[in-house]
Amino acid sequence: MQMKTILIAAAMLAVPCAMQGQVVVKHLQGPTSPIAAGVWAGDTLYLSGQLASPVTPADAAKGTPAVYGDTKTQAFSALTKIQALLKEQGLDMKDVVKMTVFLAGDPANGGKLDFAGLQASYTQFFGTKDQPNKPARSAVQVAAMVAPWALVEIEVIAVKGK
Amino acid sequence: MQMKTILIAAAMLAVPCAMQGQVVVKHLQGPTSPIAAGVWAGDTLYLSGQLASPVTPADAAKGTPAVYGDTKTQAFSALTKIQALLKEQGLDMKDVVKMTVFLAGDPANGGKLDFAGLQASYTQFFGTKDQPNKPARSAVQVAAMVAPWALVEIEVIAVKGK
Amino acid sequence: MQMKTILIAAAMLAVPCAMQGQVVVKHLQGPTSPIAAGVWAGDTLYLSGQLASPVTPADAAKGTPAVYGDTKTQAFSALTKIQALLKEQGLDMKDVVKMTVFLAGDPANGGKLDFAGLQASYTQFFGTKDQPNKPARSAVQVAAMVAPWALVEIEVIAVKGK
Repeated sequence: MQMKTILIAAAMLAVPCAMQGQVVVKHLQGPTSPIAAGVWAGDTLYLSGQLASPVTPADAAKGTPAVYGDTKTQAFSALTKIQALLKEQGLDMKDVVKMTVFLAGDPANGGKLDFAGLQASYTQFFGTKDQPNKPARSAVQVAAMVAPWALVEIEVIAVKGK
Repeated sequence: MQMKTILIAAAMLAVPCAMQGQVVVKHLQGPTSPIAAGVWAGDTLYLSGQLASPVTPADAAKGTPAVYGDTKTQAFSALTKIQALLKEQGLDMKDVVKMTVFLAGDPANGGKLDFAGLQASYTQFFGTKDQPNKPARSAVQVAAMVAPWALVEIEVIAVKGK
Repeated sequence: MQMKTILIAAAMLAVPCAMQGQVVVKHLQGPTSPIAAGVWAGDTLYLSGQLASPVTPADAAKGTPAVYGDTKTQAFSALTKIQALLKEQGLDMKDVVKMTVFLAGDPANGGKLDFAGLQASYTQFFGTKDQPNKPARSAVQVAAMVAPWALVEIEVIAVKGK
């Protein structure tokens, strides 16, 4: 067998890495929502911005609206949803590399952003004894969320590491 | 020929993948604009936030300002620009993995964000029969855009997949 | 030696590239801050949003608060911090592929965003004779920053290229 043949054989096997356009992209999407819950691009998982779930759902019979809670409650809920989405994909909070937090002015905080409320929930998921990893993060107060009740929207990028 | 030799030959070919710092970065930039239209990093294309083009350009002779339209019109225009930028790079809307939408309060909607207007244009590009893919997305209302007439700014990350 | 054996040997060496979950992730974090300064994911470095450093620090003895300056001053400071963080990681401004700029209304500009101030500092780092590269960028005005004095928060993604 010739060295040349061996090199060609090896090169063919190596090609998927050395070339462009070889990333596996997978859209985590259903038929109803106009956006994907997340999209895999190679080892990188981009999740859509997550809002809180209601603490008490709307009850049409009683005429009561859904209750979503304050910034701390909503941040905890949104982070719990993110954790569940990551776990479905074989990841966890340790794999979050980047987070963007959008806050709305909290009526319970005089209409200002409640940074302490965000941190109280955030620090239960990141930089703990069990899960010491912390993401790169930006956090700003926006003018409004798409959902009028929302005080927190959190998006993350997670990466499946070695 | 020795097994050792074969392994070395194969390893040399595989090295561009296994090592750090081997991503091809390409800036899509011209001499005038202070920012790039987009930047390739390996198979990932980061595009700059796109604003709408005017529906009717300014006419100095007639003293009329440019007209950019409402949220729906501006979203359609910005998405059309994104699609054109992607096509120039051999990609298309199906390759968008992440989108961030910044909305401004729309005077035509009582100064509130016009989510329905955004969606009316967005759903013409994503989750259609011809183009079923949907990106991960976050959408928030900001205080203002850099351009005072702008109601929508959209940025995307696209990935050249297999 | 059999062709089969050679192929297996080559395939084993190529596996780290062709398979998912082989990206090295490294969190640049200390014990104090609840967030990482940045996180490496393969060749991609995600930095946390950076605020300005004070021009003149607070002086408790004199009862004077810290002074952070206007948009131009704060943008220059935040970009200088980003450059220092990149240099610690063997990168520089040329390696920035994506930037997001969050601006707050500047009291020195009638409460509006000071885009000219941002650009005056930005163009000292990007698109210069010595450093011609320009990143993809989005820039918006938010309602408020987490720090009440902050007028500018800048986050970047940098990539270690070939």
